Amino acid sequence: MDRRSALKLSAAAAASLAIPRALHATTASTPTIEKWGLFETSLTATAPANPFDVDLAATFTHATAAPITVRGFYDGDNTFRIRFMPPATGEWRFTTRSTLFALDARTGSFTAVAPNSTNHGPVAASGLHFCHADGTWFHPFGTTCYAWTHQTEQLETQTLATLVRSPFNKVRMCLFPKSYEYVNQRPPYLPFLTNSDGSDDHSRFNPDFFRHQERRIAQLGQHNIQADLILFHPYDRWDFSRFPAAVDDRYLRYTVARFGAFRNLWWSLANEFDLLKAKSTADWDRLAALLVAEDPYAHLRSVHYSKVLYDYAKPWCTHASLQSYATERAPEWRAAWQKPIIYDEMMYEGDLPRRWGNLSGQEMTFRFWRAVIAGCYASHGETFLAPDTRDSDQHIMWAQGGIRFRGTSPERIGFLRRIVESAGPLTAVPDAYYPCAVAWGKESEGRELAATPVSSPDKASASLLAGPPPATILYFFDFHQPAEYEFPLPKLASYRADLIDPWAMTITPLPGTHSGKSLHKLPARPYMALRFRRA
Amino acid sequence: MDRRSALKLSAAAAASLAIPRALHATTASTPTIEKWGLFETSLTATAPANPFDVDLAATFTHATAAPITVRGFYDGDNTFRIRFMPPATGEWRFTTRSTLFALDARTGSFTAVAPNSTNHGPVAASGLHFCHADGTWFHPFGTTCYAWTHQTEQLETQTLATLVRSPFNKVRMCLFPKSYEYVNQRPPYLPFLTNSDGSDDHSRFNPDFFRHQERRIAQLGQHNIQADLILFHPYDRWDFSRFPAAVDDRYLRYTVARFGAFRNLWWSLANEFDLLKAKSTADWDRLAALLVAEDPYAHLRSVHYSKVLYDYAKPWCTHASLQSYATERAPEWRAAWQKPIIYDEMMYEGDLPRRWGNLSGQEMTFRFWRAVIAGCYASHGETFLAPDTRDSDQHIMWAQGGIRFRGTSPERIGFLRRIVESAGPLTAVPDAYYPCAVAWGKESEGRELAATPVSSPDKASASLLAGPPPATILYFFDFHQPAEYEFPLPKLASYRADLIDPWAMTITPLPGTHSGKSLHKLPARPYMALRFRRA
Repeated sequence: MDRRSALKLSAAAAASLAIPRALHATTASTPTIEKWGLFETSLTATAPANPFDVDLAATFTHATAAPITVRGFYDGDNTFRIRFMPPATGEWRFTTRSTLFALDARTGSFTAVAPNSTNHGPVAASGLHFCHADGTWFHPFGTTCYAWTHQTEQLETQTLATLVRSPFNKVRMCLFPKSYEYVNQRPPYLPFLTNSDGSDDHSRFNPDFFRHQERRIAQLGQHNIQADLILFHPYDRWDFSRFPAAVDDRYLRYTVARFGAFRNLWWSLANEFDLLKAKSTADWDRLAALLVAEDPYAHLRSVHYSKVLYDYAKPWCTHASLQSYATERAPEWRAAWQKPIIYDEMMYEGDLPRRWGNLSGQEMTFRFWRAVIAGCYASHGETFLAPDTRDSDQHIMWAQGGIRFRGTSPERIGFLRRIVESAGPLTAVPDAYYPCAVAWGKESEGRELAATPVSSPDKASASLLAGPPPATILYFFDFHQPAEYEFPLPKLASYRADLIDPWAMTITPLPGTHSGKSLHKLPARPYMALRFRRA
Repeated sequence: MDRRSALKLSAAAAASLAIPRALHATTASTPTIEKWGLFETSLTATAPANPFDVDLAATFTHATAAPITVRGFYDGDNTFRIRFMPPATGEWRFTTRSTLFALDARTGSFTAVAPNSTNHGPVAASGLHFCHADGTWFHPFGTTCYAWTHQTEQLETQTLATLVRSPFNKVRMCLFPKSYEYVNQRPPYLPFLTNSDGSDDHSRFNPDFFRHQERRIAQLGQHNIQADLILFHPYDRWDFSRFPAAVDDRYLRYTVARFGAFRNLWWSLANEFDLLKAKSTADWDRLAALLVAEDPYAHLRSVHYSKVLYDYAKPWCTHASLQSYATERAPEWRAAWQKPIIYDEMMYEGDLPRRWGNLSGQEMTFRFWRAVIAGCYASHGETFLAPDTRDSDQHIMWAQGGIRFRGTSPERIGFLRRIVESAGPLTAVPDAYYPCAVAWGKESEGRELAATPVSSPDKASASLLAGPPPATILYFFDFHQPAEYEFPLPKLASYRADLIDPWAMTITPLPGTHSGKSLHKLPARPYMALRFRRA
C-alpha cells in the first residue's frame, strides 16, 4: 500500500463556526466552508516515538490573499489534525510539512464562501475600541465563569444556556482546571495523560480534555459569545502553574494549534499573572512572544494581573485587561498604552465574605457606566454564596456556572449594552464639570476616528466638540444630583435629548431639539444619564 | 493732667468665652475670668500719626506658668485693646510695651479661676487626632458656611441658630467677604476704612468689621463650635487676594492680635491657596511663619488647596486640610505627614449644576464613614439651589447660611459623631479584606497611643490586634454586601457586637460575646457597619 493511501485525508466544515460533530465529519468532495469558518483536515499516521513530538504544519495559499502557515496537532488514535480559518473567500490550497514522512507534503483544497449574516469574523482591536474582521463594531460586555468548562455535562449545558440568555457577549474562562475557594470540584478531564505510576506525563496531552474544551468554545461561538481563554492561572493544586519552560511552551504550541482557528477566541495569557510566583518577567515575555509567533490570526491578546499593573504598552498586548475599578485613571492609562481598555475585573456582584466578591447590583451597574463613559469596557462576574431557592445544587456563576444569574446588575448591563450598540464606539470627552462620552457618527466615521488614538483625551474636549458634531453624546452623573445643567452641545448640529435612568432602565425623551449651550432640568437624583442624539 | 490719668485702664471678662457685650464692659476691681477665658484690657491714647501703626504689646506673667507676650490692637475712637487667654489658673500680671509713650509700661492683673464644665480649652493636635487643652478629645465633624458672617443681622442670627441645632462642631468660614457664584450679596461691613476718594485705605482697618466678626466667633464659642477661620481666599472682587506683602502682613498681625485669645479659633491660612495666583510659595511660607510668630497660643493651623496638594509635612501645619475624597490614600498621606487629617472638602450635598455641589445625602454620609474608618475626619457642606418651600428668601448654607440644613446627611453625620465620641479616637487598622478602625481603650489610653504616630498603618493590623485588646473595633462595609464575615477579633478580650445601619441610623445588638475568629451573619445589603465593644 502506498504510504499516501494509508492516509485518510479529510476535511470538515460547519456552516458557520464548526461544532464538534461537524469537526469530525468527512467528505470526499472539495469542501465548502464560510469565510472565518473552521476548516479541518485529518491525517492518520503511526509515529515511531511520542506522536505529540511530531512536527506538522500546513501552508494555506490563495489566489490573492497572503499565505498562512498553521501548526497541526496530534489528537490521539493515530490521528493528526490541521485546522484553518480562511480570512478570504475563494479557493484555498494547502500543503503539509512534517518531520514524519507519512504526514509530509500532503495537499488539499477547499472553497471559502461568503459568511452568513451572523458571522462577522474574529474580533481585533481598532484604535481604542474593538471590531470584527468585517468592520462591525464589537463592544465587549463580558462576564466571568472561570471553571465552567470543568464541570459535569449537565451543569455545563445549563451554564451554556444561561450565558446564551444573558446580556454578555464575552466570557473569561480558564483552560486549566481551577482549584480555589468555592471551586474545588474534581474536574471530569485533566489536560495530560498519565504515566503508569499515575503521575502526569507532561509530554502527552489528553485529547479528551482538549476536545471537551474546544466543544465549549465552539458552542459559545455559535451564539457569538467571545471565549476569553485564560492560558495560565495560579489557582492550582496540580502544578500547572509551576511547569518548566519547555512544558509551558509545548502546552502553548499545542493549544494554539488546536484552538487558533476558532474565530471567537481571545487569548488571556494569564489570570493574576503576578500570583504565579514560579514565573519571571522573562518567562512571561517568552510565552507572549511564542503566542505571537504561533497564532497566525493574531487573535486578541492580553494578560490580567492581581496587584502588579502589567505594562500594556508592550507590543504583544492588543488591549489592557485590568483588575481595577479606577475608571478615573483611564485617560492616563490610555495615553500611555494607546489601546482599548477593558476593566476585566471590577470585583463581582454577590455576597461572599471576600472583598472582591460582594458588590451590590447597583455598584456593579454603575461601575459599568463609569467604564463606558471613560471610553472603556468592563466585565461582570457573580458570586452569590447564599442558598439559591431555585437551584438545590448550589453553584457560583463566577466559578462553576449555573442555571441563572441571580444578581440585579446583568439586566442593567444589557440595557447599557443596547445604548452603546446603538451609539457606536464611545470616546471619553471630559466636560468641564461632568464626564461624558461621545460617539462620532455612523459606524464607518466612528471607526476612522476611533482608530486615531487620542493621546490626551482630557484636553480633547473643547477641540473635539468644536469639530464635526458627534452623533451621540452621553452624560452620566454618577453620585451627582444636579437639579439642572447647561450642556455644552456643538453649535453646528441639532440634538434630541433623552433622560436615562440606568437603574430603572427607562429612557424618557425630553421635548425639543437642542444646540449650543443647552440648559436642562434634571431630576436631582443621583445616577442619572442624559443622552443627546443628532436630530 | 498726668499722662497716666488720661488712660482708661479696664479689664473685662465673660464667664466662659467672652461675648461681645462683655468684651467692652469695664470694672474697677481685679477681674476674675476662667482659665482659657478671654481677658481684655483697654487703653485710651491719641496717636500722633496712624494709630494702626502704633506698636503695642503686653507680657503676661504667672507664678509658675511661662510668660506670654501678646500684641495689642487699635479699635478706633482712641481706644487700644489687649486680649489674653490664660492657660493656667491663678494670678496673672501684665506690663505693656509701646512705641507710643502713653501706652507704654502700663500694668495690671487678673485672676484666672477654674473653667466651668463646658470649657475644655482650645483644641490642639494630639498625634493623629485632636484634643482640648484639658485632655478631652475633640473629634471634628464640621460644616462649611464660607460667608455666613457677611450677611444681614437677621440671616446671621438664623444661621447661628441653625449651626447650634446641627450636629456640627466646627465651621469653615472666611474672614474676608466672599464673591463667587451664588455668593454675590454686598457685605454689610468691609475690612478697611476708605480714603476720601472712596478707595480702601489698606493701612487702616475698619473696627466695625472686625468687631462684627469676633462677635460671631465668640457666639460659636459659647456653643463649643470651633471657628475654622480662613484668612485668605480667591473669591474676590475687592483685591483682597492681591495685596502686596506689607498689606498682607499688617492684616495678619492685626487679625491675630484681635482674635488670638478666642479659644475656639482655628487658623486656615487660605482656602484654595493655589487659586490665589498673585501669591508665590515664598509668600505662603512668609505668611505661615508670621502666623506662627504672632500667635502665642499656637492655635491649630492649616491651609486648604484646590488642585495642588499642599505639603502638610511643613512644620507650621498642625494638621492636613484636604480637598479630596480619596480616603484610600489616607495611609500614604499619614505616613508622609504624621499629623491628623481632615477631609475638609469632599464636595457638598446639594443640587447645584457644579461638580462639587450636588452630592446625594447617601454619598456625603458614606464619605464621612470612609474618612472615619480611615482614621481621619471630614467636613460637610450643603449647596441646595432649588427653591426651599420653607424659606422664601433663598439661601445656600455653604455660602450665606440659612434657616435650616435641607439635606439628608447632617442627621446621619450626627449619628456617626455619637458613635465616634462614644469610642474615642479611631485608628485605621486594615483588615485583610475590609477596612476597619479601632479605638484603643479609655480616653487616656487612647490618647497615649494616638500620640504615637503610626508610620505604616497598613502594616500595623496584625501586630496591633495582637497587642492590648482595643476597646472598640468598627467595621464599615461600604459598597460591599457580604452575607457573612469572619472577624479577626483579639483573642485576649471578649466583645459584644452591634450591627449598625449608617443610613437608617439603627444600632442592633447581636447576641453573645465574641473573641478570636468570630463569624457573623450579615444582612447582605451594602453600607452596613459592625461594631465590637469590649464586654
